[in-house]
Amino acid sequence: MANSRSGESVIERVVRVLETFSAERTVQTASEIGRRAQLPSSTAHRLVEELVASGILERDEEQRVRLGMHLWELALRGSTALRLRQAALPHMERVQSAIREHTQLAVLEQEEALFLERLSHPDAGANITRVAGRLPLHASSSGLVLLAHADPGLRERVLAAPLRSLGPGTITDPQLLRRVLAGIRRSGHVVAPGSVEGVSTGVAVPIRDAGSVIAALSVVLPRASDPAAAVRALSDAAVRIEEELRATRV
Amino acid sequence: MANSRSGESVIERVVRVLETFSAERTVQTASEIGRRAQLPSSTAHRLVEELVASGILERDEEQRVRLGMHLWELALRGSTALRLRQAALPHMERVQSAIREHTQLAVLEQEEALFLERLSHPDAGANITRVAGRLPLHASSSGLVLLAHADPGLRERVLAAPLRSLGPGTITDPQLLRRVLAGIRRSGHVVAPGSVEGVSTGVAVPIRDAGSVIAALSVVLPRASDPAAAVRALSDAAVRIEEELRATRV
Repeated sequence: MANSRSGESVIERVVRVLETFSAERTVQTASEIGRRAQLPSSTAHRLVEELVASGILERDEEQRVRLGMHLWELALRGSTALRLRQAALPHMERVQSAIREHTQLAVLEQEEALFLERLSHPDAGANITRVAGRLPLHASSSGLVLLAHADPGLRERVLAAPLRSLGPGTITDPQLLRRVLAGIRRSGHVVAPGSVEGVSTGVAVPIRDAGSVIAALSVVLPRASDPAAAVRALSDAAVRIEEELRATRV
Repeated sequence: MANSRSGESVIERVVRVLETFSAERTVQTASEIGRRAQLPSSTAHRLVEELVASGILERDEEQRVRLGMHLWELALRGSTALRLRQAALPHMERVQSAIREHTQLAVLEQEEALFLERLSHPDAGANITRVAGRLPLHASSSGLVLLAHADPGLRERVLAAPLRSLGPGTITDPQLLRRVLAGIRRSGHVVAPGSVEGVSTGVAVPIRDAGSVIAALSVVLPRASDPAAAVRALSDAAVRIEEELRATRV
């Protein structure tokens, strides 16, 4: 429906427009959007105009646009991400006050770990993840937990592809990665030193709903820390989040 | 661009589709969406098909759809709502551990208070607001703060319209409301007993960025509580959030 001459639909072009926004680029002109989304300038201007009219984008006094509050509202109001995040948040806060570093919640999305929430202590160490940011499945403690419990087809695709190194501890050997994933399924957690950054260790556990792993809960510790308390705090929190999810299942 | 015979654009119809989802309705069939969005069934099915292809919606095994994680990611990743919420969250947590009830962050959106965040103590009292939910400006402590600092045109529109009663303490007399709003601008906070629900009292303060009030920070207390500690905790938090916003201004 409503395809352009290039055969691309309006919806695909809208997604491309929205994809030009990022944490580093929250405000743009229609021309910048057109260039970054590789759309003809007139198309970009018309699309931006319509998106502003519907509240998806908002325009400021300098004719630049940003993502609209109405988009935020539409995306969250009925979302299962919000349900999971609301179930998890009080228990993430408990982990956070015990461990006092970074506590994160991630889901599998398009073969990467997508972070839904992150709580950080003011004095916590390094951590590059952010809310609505992503990390590779093989190169983050959350990703490793999600990959360990992903369907076998996805797991084999990741194992067959080049395993890019992010930190000095990223597992780039597929045979070793396969053993680590089996170990995660056995032990119920992972401790991944240096998989994202040399200075830190990720610790993660799975969260299940209706029998399947739907998320990973993790903390990021300074590299030298003993992970035992974090494993305990995360495992306790996961049990409680799973109870919450059972109580609120739709 | 790409208008239907009814003159409505694809983007307007997509917004109508997304608006059929809510906290109570996270999963729907394409036919239900069509009925609720008042779209012809064939149009609804085609739109849903395209939205699934682009990750805006996700389909489950029973051919029902829900809001997609990719929509969540697109809406949050570059959003100013996320920037505000990330700046506010650590300070909301501090209010939360001091007051142990509900702590909320709201912005003005389409003449209502839209709630961006809510933290709740497990033993906290009644509270009907939720994340991505809305309340009328005149009938919530957050709304009153936002209205007090809104541009005069909006304020006069609200004062001229019928002021619907939500709780026994909702201010429905425009002259009284005008005095209360002036009082909020003078004192820097509002204590609103029973404005939403008879059993609770909302307490709220403004948050400023670049000289303008951009949000309200509030707590919901049981009706009989003394609001003094809440006013202090909220005012302290607002100062700190404003510092954070100054440090991260784009």
